[in-house]
This record gives sequence, C-alpha cells and structure tokens, in this order.
Amino acid sequence: MTNCQETAAQPADLIARHAPLLDRAIAATETREAWSPFRDSPSSKIHGAEKPAAGKAAFAARRDTRFTIDQPGITGWVGAEVSPFTQQPLGITYPRSDPQALIAAAQAAQPAWAAADPELRLALCVEIAQRMYDRNFEMAHAVMHVAGQSYTQAFSGSGPNALDRGIEALAYAARAMRAVSPDGTYHRDFAGQPVALEKRFTLVPRGLGLVICCASFPTWNAYPSMFASLATGNPVIVKPHPIAILPMALVVETARAVLAEFGFDPNLVTLAADTPEAPVAGAFVADPAVQIIDFTGSPRYGSHLEQTVVGKLLYTETAGVNSVVVESVDDLDDAARAIARASCLFSAQMCTSPQVIYVPREGIATAAGHAGFDTVAQAIVAQVDAIADQPAQAAGIMGAVQGQVSLDVVTDATAEAARRDLRVLRPAAPYDHPDFPEARTMTPLILAVTPAEVDLYAEERFGPVLYIVAADSGEAAVAEATELARTRGTISCYLYSTDAAFLDAAEPRYLAAGANLSINLTGAMWINFAAAYSDYHVTGLNPAGNACLTDLAFVASRFRIVQNRRPARVEIAAQ
Amino acid sequence: MTNCQETAAQPADLIARHAPLLDRAIAATETREAWSPFRDSPSSKIHGAEKPAAGKAAFAARRDTRFTIDQPGITGWVGAEVSPFTQQPLGITYPRSDPQALIAAAQAAQPAWAAADPELRLALCVEIAQRMYDRNFEMAHAVMHVAGQSYTQAFSGSGPNALDRGIEALAYAARAMRAVSPDGTYHRDFAGQPVALEKRFTLVPRGLGLVICCASFPTWNAYPSMFASLATGNPVIVKPHPIAILPMALVVETARAVLAEFGFDPNLVTLAADTPEAPVAGAFVADPAVQIIDFTGSPRYGSHLEQTVVGKLLYTETAGVNSVVVESVDDLDDAARAIARASCLFSAQMCTSPQVIYVPREGIATAAGHAGFDTVAQAIVAQVDAIADQPAQAAGIMGAVQGQVSLDVVTDATAEAARRDLRVLRPAAPYDHPDFPEARTMTPLILAVTPAEVDLYAEERFGPVLYIVAADSGEAAVAEATELARTRGTISCYLYSTDAAFLDAAEPRYLAAGANLSINLTGAMWINFAAAYSDYHVTGLNPAGNACLTDLAFVASRFRIVQNRRPARVEIAAQ
Repeated sequence: MTNCQETAAQPADLIARHAPLLDRAIAATETREAWSPFRDSPSSKIHGAEKPAAGKAAFAARRDTRFTIDQPGITGWVGAEVSPFTQQPLGITYPRSDPQALIAAAQAAQPAWAAADPELRLALCVEIAQRMYDRNFEMAHAVMHVAGQSYTQAFSGSGPNALDRGIEALAYAARAMRAVSPDGTYHRDFAGQPVALEKRFTLVPRGLGLVICCASFPTWNAYPSMFASLATGNPVIVKPHPIAILPMALVVETARAVLAEFGFDPNLVTLAADTPEAPVAGAFVADPAVQIIDFTGSPRYGSHLEQTVVGKLLYTETAGVNSVVVESVDDLDDAARAIARASCLFSAQMCTSPQVIYVPREGIATAAGHAGFDTVAQAIVAQVDAIADQPAQAAGIMGAVQGQVSLDVVTDATAEAARRDLRVLRPAAPYDHPDFPEARTMTPLILAVTPAEVDLYAEERFGPVLYIVAADSGEAAVAEATELARTRGTISCYLYSTDAAFLDAAEPRYLAAGANLSINLTGAMWINFAAAYSDYHVTGLNPAGNACLTDLAFVASRFRIVQNRRPARVEIAAQ
Repeated sequence: MTNCQETAAQPADLIARHAPLLDRAIAATETREAWSPFRDSPSSKIHGAEKPAAGKAAFAARRDTRFTIDQPGITGWVGAEVSPFTQQPLGITYPRSDPQALIAAAQAAQPAWAAADPELRLALCVEIAQRMYDRNFEMAHAVMHVAGQSYTQAFSGSGPNALDRGIEALAYAARAMRAVSPDGTYHRDFAGQPVALEKRFTLVPRGLGLVICCASFPTWNAYPSMFASLATGNPVIVKPHPIAILPMALVVETARAVLAEFGFDPNLVTLAADTPEAPVAGAFVADPAVQIIDFTGSPRYGSHLEQTVVGKLLYTETAGVNSVVVESVDDLDDAARAIARASCLFSAQMCTSPQVIYVPREGIATAAGHAGFDTVAQAIVAQVDAIADQPAQAAGIMGAVQGQVSLDVVTDATAEAARRDLRVLRPAAPYDHPDFPEARTMTPLILAVTPAEVDLYAEERFGPVLYIVAADSGEAAVAEATELARTRGTISCYLYSTDAAFLDAAEPRYLAAGANLSINLTGAMWINFAAAYSDYHVTGLNPAGNACLTDLAFVASRFRIVQNRRPARVEIAAQ
C-alpha cells in the first residue's frame, strides 16, 4: 500500500459508487420519465430540523465577510450584492482575479484532467452535485438574497431541479464519450496480404470552458454547462453576474474542494467575479485558450456573442417572448389559475414566464358555455388577485423583484398604457411580504390590448407585466404567437383548446417556429416547470438561444478524438 | 390498395431492406473493426465483364453533351473540365442555376422531408449509396478524367471507400436520432397531486445544407457531408469544384432519382455548378436559409469561412503538412517502401500524403545495424524509383497530376532548391503513361534539407514534392513534426521507431498536437489509407479542419428537438 492510496480518496470507489446513479439518469433521458435522485421540497420532514437551520446559519455567517477562494492572480475584492428581500447589501466580497492568471492556471491544470479516466471525471461531477445537494439550504438562502426567488423556489428550482439538469448533462456526456471505443483491432486483406492493426482512440478536450451566468436563476444553466465541459475534460471558468455572485461562489468552492480531495488541481474550476463598471467576460471570450463559451443572460450580449464568436463552441440561452393562446377550455377557472400561477411565479422573472395571452375577441367556448373576452380576462385577473391578495401565498410564489430595473419595466408599461389609453385590467402594486417588510415586491400589471399594440408586447418585458391580447380568432392568435416565437424567440409556449382539429392545425405551426409547447396544462404542476431528463429546455431554433440544455449536441462537440494505430502484436495462440 | 401504393415505391420495404446494413454499420463504428458492404477492387472476377465496359461507355457517352438535371432556375450551361490523362476538354456542360432559385426550391422541398420518418430518410440515403455503387465503374472513369486518380484508385477511393464514409455518417445519424425517444409519459406528484403528462419529441432539421467539394477527391467528404445533412432532414445543395463537376453531378443525379422514386421532391438535392471566374459559393454561404456548411478544399477559403461564418454550423477539412519521423526501424526497405508508396499515391495530391520526412542526421538504428542519413534517404529514393521506373506501376499508383498548378509547385520547388543550393536526391520528371501518352504526369521531387529550410517544407506543397529533413535527433524530429502539426495542421502523421520508450514519449506529443498517428506501418496496406467505420478522419484540433468525418459531433447538431406535452389521456384499464 502506497502513501498515495492511504491519503487520497479512491477514484475506483467513487466511480463504482456513482455508477448506478449515472446509469439511472441515462435511462431517464431515454424514456423521458419523471426521475430525480433528489427531493425538491425543503420540508424538515424530509431533511430533519437541523439542516434547514444550519443552512440559514451558514448563509448568515457569510454576511459582511470575504468569500475566500484560494485561486491565483487575485488583484482585489469585489461584490455589491443587495438582497431583494431586505434591500440591504450582503456585504460579501469575492476575489477578483486577473483573467490571464485564471487562464494560465486552468491551462496548467488541464493535462492531468484531460488524461484522467472519463468515468472518473463523470463521477467527480456527480460527487460535486451531491455535495451541492447536501448544502442546498445554504444555497436556497443565497439564491433568495441575491435573486429574489422565494425560499421554496430557491430551494427546489435553484437546487435539485437545477442539479438534475447538471446530472442530465453528465448522462449525455457519458453517452457521447462511451460511444467512442478506447481501442479496436482491424483485420483486412490488402492485395491478398493480411493486415492486422491495433488502434487506440483517445478523447481530447477542446480547451477552456467559460460559463457566463445570468442574474436571476444562476445555477439553472450553470450546472449543465459546467458539468458538460468538466466531464469532457475541459477546465471551467465561472463568470457570475455581478449582482448574483454568491450562488456560483458556493458551487466553485465545492467543486474545488472535491477536485482537490481526489488529487486534481482545484484551478480546474475558478471564479471570475467582476463589477458592472469593469466587466471581465470579454477578456475571456477573446482569449484563444477559451474554446467553449456557455452564455445565459441578456439577448443583447448573447446576440453580440452569436454574431462575433468564431472558431469556438458557443451555447446560448437568452430570452424571448412566451405566449399563451386560449382558444377554448374545459374549465375556465382551471386554465386561468394555471396561467395566473405561471405569470406570478418569481414575479415573471423566469425564462419560461408567459408575457402575452391571446384570447379571441369574440370569446371562447367552455364546458359551461360561451365566455366573452372580458370574462376570460377577468378570470385570469381574479386568479392573479387570489395569489396577490394573500401575502403568505404571494411570498411563496412571487418572491421579490431582483432589481429596480424590473420595477422600472412596470412603471414604464403603466405610463405607456396611460399614454395610449389602454385598459388596465389590473394595476401593479407591491404586496406586503410577511417576513421581509422591506422586500422589493410587485404584483403583475395586466393590460388589455389589441394586435395594434404589438410593438408593446412583442418585446421582452423582464418583470411582472402581462398583456391580454384580443385576437381576431384562435387561428389568428396561433399565427401571431408563432410568428412572435420565430422572430423574437421563445423558451416555452402555452396553448389551451378543447378542439382536436384546432390543435392538429396549430401544432405544426409551433413546430415550424421551433417552439416548445405545453397544451391544456392545468393542475398542481406549474405549467412553466421544465423537468430535467424529461423536458428538452430551449430548442435552439429561434432567437431565444442557439442550444438545447441538454441533448447530445450540447456535449458531443466538447471533446475530440485522436487516434493512433500500429501493427497488431502477433497473436501466438492463434498461430 | 390505393393508387399511391401501386405506383410509388414502398417506404416500409425500403426501411426493412436496409435495416440490417445500417445496424451492421453501427456495430462497426462501435468496434472500429474492418467492415464494408462493398468490394473495393474493380476486378471483373467480382463484378463480371459487363459492368466495367458499361461504366466506361456511360462515361464516354457523357462527352461533349449537356449533363441534364431538371432543377430550377437554370440560367446557362457551364463546364470546362479537362482530363489530366488526355489533356483534352471533356466537353460536358452542367446547368448553372440562380442560387436563389435553388434555395427556394430546397425550402419548398424541405417540409415533407422534415416530416418524413427519420428511418426512411436513413434508408433512402443507403439506397442512394447502393445505387452509386452500382454505377461505380462510371464514377471511376469520371473521377479519373477530372481529378487524375488512377483507375483502381478512382474505383476504390472515390467509390466504396468514400461510400463507406457516407454510410458511416448515416450510422452516426441513426445513433444520434434514435437517442431521442419520440414520446414519453411523465408521472409525478406535485404538492400531493398526481400529474400525468404525455410528451412528444420531434426531430427538426436545421435548415439547408451546403456541401462545398474539393477538386482532387470530391466524393470522399461529399458523401458523409451530404448524408449527414440529408438523413437529419436538411436539403442539400452540392457546390462542386468547377474543375471537377462530373462526379458530383452523377451523385446529384442519382440522389434526385431515388428521392423522386419514393415520392419526395428531387430538389432536396441540387447542383450549384459554377466557374472559376464567377464563383457562387459566397451567395449560398451568405443566405440565412443555408444553416449548415460542409467545406472541403483550400486552407485559404476554409480559413475565411472559419473566421467569418457565424450563427451556422460549419464543418471544414482543409489541408496541412503531414510528416513522417523515422527514428529507428526493423527493416529499412520495408519502411522506405511504405513511405515511398504513400508519397507516390496519386502524386501526393491526397490530404493524407506525407510531405516532410524527418531522419536524424546521425542516422538510425535498424535490425541490420546502423544506417546513416544518406542510406535512409537513398532507400526512400530507391523505392520511389522502383515505382516511377515501371510505367504500369507508376500509372496505377501515381495516376496523373490534376492541374498545371501542381506542376508549377514542382517547378518552383526545383528552382528554389537550386537558388538555395539544396541537395536534389531525386529530380522530378514525367513518366510515360502506358495508356494515355498525353497524360500530365510527374514523379516526385525529393530534396534533402535541414531544419534551416523550415520555411520551405512547413508550407503545404500540393504536388509531388518531398522533403527529407536531417533532424538533430529523433526527439527533435518529433518536436518539430508535432509543432508543424499544431501550427500548420495535419490530417495524418507517421512515425517509425523500434524503441518502446521513444514511442511512449512521442505519442503524448502527437496527442497534444491533435494529430492522428500511424506507427510502424509497413506492408500491403497504404499507410495513408483511412478506413471508414474504423479510422476517425481529421481530429478538428489543428488547422487542417474543424471537424471529424465522422463522429457523433459531426451529426448531432444537424437537427434539433421540439417538444410538446399535454395531460395524459385517462388510462381506464388502470382505474
């Protein structure tokens, strides 16, 4: 037994330990069934009383301190996060490192990582995911107080639901890498002469991965992006949004600890914290060593990258305009409740939040008879009110508004509505958060408009603003919704109809627009919930992003194959 | 029975007929063994006496006629191909179509193709491959007389060996598409309420594919590129090199016939013939409808595409500088023969042709004792002479030189050698082709140089020019060869050493340069032979190309996934 074996964690054990989970995840990506190794409820019945308290305390202990990460090239400490719930600074600062130092450190760390067994890289990523799950109560408070998500949403959506997407990326990475045999023998006659070759095929990573995270839901795409690059052998530099650094700092901290524990250079994962005044992403994007860029964030910067990055892999998710078409329903209240809940969730600050609701101006059929446009619109307003008027429920669903900019969106939309003399179906107003009296809250503004106002609603309004559009007909609604999807992008579209023929005609239009579609969803599941392993998130076919998170295409290009071949050794037994 | 069933070929039959072949191809890509459904010898013992003669006659009948393709937007007829064997114009003209007409026609054809069963698309591509195999004698003459390949090489390399690569791309397309379940059911409790969803997942092609072909070996990359795009639902516009249109016109003709036979719009595959004076590729590259570009050709245009194309898929294979390092050998003549054959094959006009041969200036160890630099160099020269001095053998191996430009390469290299007073180990000279007295032939120029002449040999010389470099040592040779690979690109590197420790040290360097490596290959197989299903061609890790033809990454991004989901129908039996 060597010293090494005594002191370092055992790779073979780790691979064996996580193999069943990875195999189960692969099976789920094949069947698209519901599955998760995690529990996404924060209930202390599941987790015990201790973990929730410990997580809250861990977050509290971070306040007004430096978040130490022992990475190279630290030139200062930055951080100006403000809690949307207290509107007070968190007081946490993070190392700002010289980009060249992080790049050089990642390059130095890469050879050993590239040479490691791909199965070990996969297992280490699973281990990171499980450690993040272990500290998920801390993560929940971190996400709450930088992004504004409610406690339960931060726990589930930024925890297990996001971790599952990371493991889903690992499942695809495993499938893509295992598709390459490490060796092969080749026997063929050439001109009557037998030729026997031994061939070896080595997976070679592309280079450094840069993961640029969004502000409102940082872990959601960061896990799949990080794990897709890491598992395929590429170091990762994490560039968090400057107003939401803490969640990604926790991830970087955990990843580095796991890597170091298993004898790898922790600089395989580093944090590139910056400030709005001195953004650093461009320095990484421009560096030839950075070969893979995963971007989640504004359409403005995403589109800049899409139009300028050449010779590198670029995966983007930006934003679009998600629509609902209500053509006919069984139960109006059920549909209205589903739409209202999706519109209220996280105050419409989600990539899947609906913004435009098309209702035929002549009204719709319901099981209870005809419902006019106003009846449908008022049903939606009533369901929003039902949430907004109960502060405990509003707090659990809407959480807080992350930034003043989203309040400005509401103010501007209200002013523009007044200028155009639009019908305000529901004015926006703050709700009183039961736990955080200073919380930046805002319940949805709901406006009734006609297609003449398309310039207003066809642009993403990142905040709680909802347009109910009086469409000429159900068909016209689908035509406009899909045109919006095609030209402005969409992550998720919603359609309500009880008419099978109408649905049959509508579905190909959504398909042609590259729009994922949820049909007639009501009930307990959020209609804008995207389940890892089961739902494909983002099609890559419209301006809302160029990639799917995740599918084989999301991982298959992150590594290359280099071969060598030589004469096969003589098989003496076969003579 | 409907009229349709009576008149159109049966999709289900075709899928069933080709399923075993496709499954066998998939198995071969997994094991990397030797396999082909085709025979790559033109022997009449295999094919009978009739097919060779019919193929030759079919080619002859094309001479001095229009090659009719019933595609839209024809504005004229172009074609100025000249046979390298007769130096006479072929006299064949091809339709020049307005690019916008071809794009519009492909767009019109796409919806039905996109909606077709992916298994049918795969089977139709297999059918196209088999039909091309059926007319491979015609193809062999076509390739001979536009590219200059010898008859046997044109038959094998541009026929079965290239078709196999097309089928290999289909195997990967099948793997990537079959990895996506067409549907799934999702059952989960949310807040204690059971939710059951039906989900459907549709494969959606990216857009139009443009396949830009090279002049010297057009079918080699065209088959995998065309089939990768077609199988995943994308129409293909084939842009042949203006001096080598005929082979691709045959492919387009066959593809269109098969598509039409099975009820699809033949404009799914069209020919974009042009002239050197009025090149047309740029019009397609710039069009937003063209979403996938496969390019094989000059590093100049390839690099232009790599640096300018954004928002589209781009797969390139250009060229590099392939090297041989001879550090030590068992049998010098065996190694010299292997190197000489690879250097002579198609007069070094192949992407895998070696150009630079490093030999330690102090000589090398062989089983028969030490061999000095000159002894090694003369052994290679002697083996080249052995081929060049027998016209029948020279004709079978070297074929003809495609263009005057490659003769100019030899002339320039000879002149530069004289200016620098370099040792000419073997002057270039034509050989007398036994069948074509007017053939443009040229046997290799072989120069002895030192690393001081790196500016000469580190640039691709597309023609029969070979530099034997006196390296400081075997280690220095590997260092220089891999640096050349990394900075100038390479498709294939070769290394000879009997020293296991030397090989162990060298291999990681080739790996780090992203260079595929053949070690100690001698014998009947051409050392620069790349076998479909078994060899990965091009790593994508150095300037010789950004893609591997083929692997999962080559196909996985050519389609996207769009989903829809709705409440599951009540399962009455389960109540």
